Amino acid sequence: MRQRPVIGITLGDPSGIGPEITVKTLAQERIYGICRPVVIGDAGVLKKSAEEAVKRRDMLIHPVTSISDCRFEFGTIDVYDLRNVELPKLKIGAVDAMSGSAAFSAVKKAIELALAGDIDATVTNPLNKEALNLAGHRYSGHTEIYADLTGTKKYSMMLADESLRVVHVSTHVSLREACDRVKKDRVLEVITLAYHTCKQLGIENPKIAVAGLNPHAGENGMFGREEIEEITPAILSAQAQGINAEGPIPPDTVFSKARGGMYDIAVAMYHDQGHIPLKTLGFQYKNGKWQSVSGVNITLGLPIIRSSVDHGTAFNHAWQGAANESSLVNAIGYAVRFATRPQKQETI
Amino acid sequence: MRQRPVIGITLGDPSGIGPEITVKTLAQERIYGICRPVVIGDAGVLKKSAEEAVKRRDMLIHPVTSISDCRFEFGTIDVYDLRNVELPKLKIGAVDAMSGSAAFSAVKKAIELALAGDIDATVTNPLNKEALNLAGHRYSGHTEIYADLTGTKKYSMMLADESLRVVHVSTHVSLREACDRVKKDRVLEVITLAYHTCKQLGIENPKIAVAGLNPHAGENGMFGREEIEEITPAILSAQAQGINAEGPIPPDTVFSKARGGMYDIAVAMYHDQGHIPLKTLGFQYKNGKWQSVSGVNITLGLPIIRSSVDHGTAFNHAWQGAANESSLVNAIGYAVRFATRPQKQETI
Repeated sequence: MRQRPVIGITLGDPSGIGPEITVKTLAQERIYGICRPVVIGDAGVLKKSAEEAVKRRDMLIHPVTSISDCRFEFGTIDVYDLRNVELPKLKIGAVDAMSGSAAFSAVKKAIELALAGDIDATVTNPLNKEALNLAGHRYSGHTEIYADLTGTKKYSMMLADESLRVVHVSTHVSLREACDRVKKDRVLEVITLAYHTCKQLGIENPKIAVAGLNPHAGENGMFGREEIEEITPAILSAQAQGINAEGPIPPDTVFSKARGGMYDIAVAMYHDQGHIPLKTLGFQYKNGKWQSVSGVNITLGLPIIRSSVDHGTAFNHAWQGAANESSLVNAIGYAVRFATRPQKQETI
Repeated sequence: MRQRPVIGITLGDPSGIGPEITVKTLAQERIYGICRPVVIGDAGVLKKSAEEAVKRRDMLIHPVTSISDCRFEFGTIDVYDLRNVELPKLKIGAVDAMSGSAAFSAVKKAIELALAGDIDATVTNPLNKEALNLAGHRYSGHTEIYADLTGTKKYSMMLADESLRVVHVSTHVSLREACDRVKKDRVLEVITLAYHTCKQLGIENPKIAVAGLNPHAGENGMFGREEIEEITPAILSAQAQGINAEGPIPPDTVFSKARGGMYDIAVAMYHDQGHIPLKTLGFQYKNGKWQSVSGVNITLGLPIIRSSVDHGTAFNHAWQGAANESSLVNAIGYAVRFATRPQKQETI
């Protein structure tokens, strides 16, 4: 039997909820049953969070400078210690350059460790874009850092929860630009990424739903022609390669169908088309606060594995020990699934 | 105490699931506890559906030619009989001009009866756009027929289920045109319609969430400027009129927040932005079939009340007696709420 995979968990922005949800996650014994986790970040921050925010003084924080020194035992939290936060200067719940810098360094180190094969997969806690920029790192988010530092050109964001997986043709661009980016080659590229992802997850003949761009998928050209000119040709090309892709399907029913088990994965044409169904299902608000967040964000197309929580730093309620760790737990679960499947060469 | 309102229910396209879900709905005694329902359409079609599809021969079909002849008693289904379907020629589960014509006549009659004050509200069953066009009626749907026949210029589509209400800045236009239609005046118009709607539903100081157009609501202009140039000015104008409107809120979290009770209603910038969350929540698929459909479609801004199911004619499983009536039941419930509240003149 293969050993459980080593999962590197970045600490995220130390001013946000990353440290506390990490402690809460690693205080669950079942996590150690599926993987060998190691946190990448500042050990002092994690210790402070465990003691002051989460009140889990029973969790031993164990700083290491090499993955080979990790104990991987429940009750001990191994931290690849970057010593990059001066605790007295830590600004809790605020945008800050020191925190942005620490968050970036953790991601950079995680990528290096994964590329070197020291860890089997990376899982990221939230960072704050503004803090990142204040620290001099001009990226719009994790995905762009990963693409840049691994030299990846063709990638896509997948969001997933227990009942629905969605990959995106575009993400952080205006809706007008998103319309412009619905081009046959890119749609085909994302269908192919979706196909390989399902195969990696162990799905034999993945059924892929491809959404339209326009209402009712354009209603035969009445409300837009992208379905006719770009999306259908991409689907036909994918089918010609043996991929079981269907569509274009009206955007307001495709996600219900995929969720109901009719498809293994859905291709969304723009950020909110895919994010709205998943976040509407996954974010449970009550009395103005999240009750649970169950989504996971996965970057497809990278040479290494990266999954992530699908929420932000939540500065407004950070370091109170109240943040919900379910998205991080699910992100680790997805990373383990990807790391455990043999990623053999595909013919398609 | 006021009498229960008279609700005119159009039969929809006779080739679709309208007749069977109507029988199933009116076979529920509780409906007669909240309203006085009358079907508008061909009595022969309803009788055939009750006997052959739904197998409810115990329901007496009672044709009338005047609302004053209705019995409004559970066990009897009153039908304002339009005698516009030749039963031997009825094509079940198919696009057909006779069916399109019958569906149109029922809607036209319902509007006339409502404008004349003979009925208090109208509830519509699904029609098929293609059949409508085959019959020579060039409309893209119910909403456009209602707007035209009542001379209404400022209107909006509201979708609602038990936990979420959404009004739309635009509906049946391409996504590119939807971007163009996000203009301050129109956004303000829709915020105002949302406000009056909530007041009519008995909500004292409605909290209105206004979505952004772009991902992350544009992230301060990084991904589009409509939030800055059009949506925020509309919100400020609404606030200056005393309307409790907030936004622009990122499209992928606004619906979770509204559903969680933080807002009474949400303003969506385009068709799918509002339809995706409601249909993802409301359409439950299992083994490739709907298990339930709970949404309601309401046209705001009309001089009469109109609510509707939020699904189509479902030709592929019509006349099998298996269609789910929950959306029609909910549509009647909404019509009753609107018809029961005194619609006094508002100062805003």
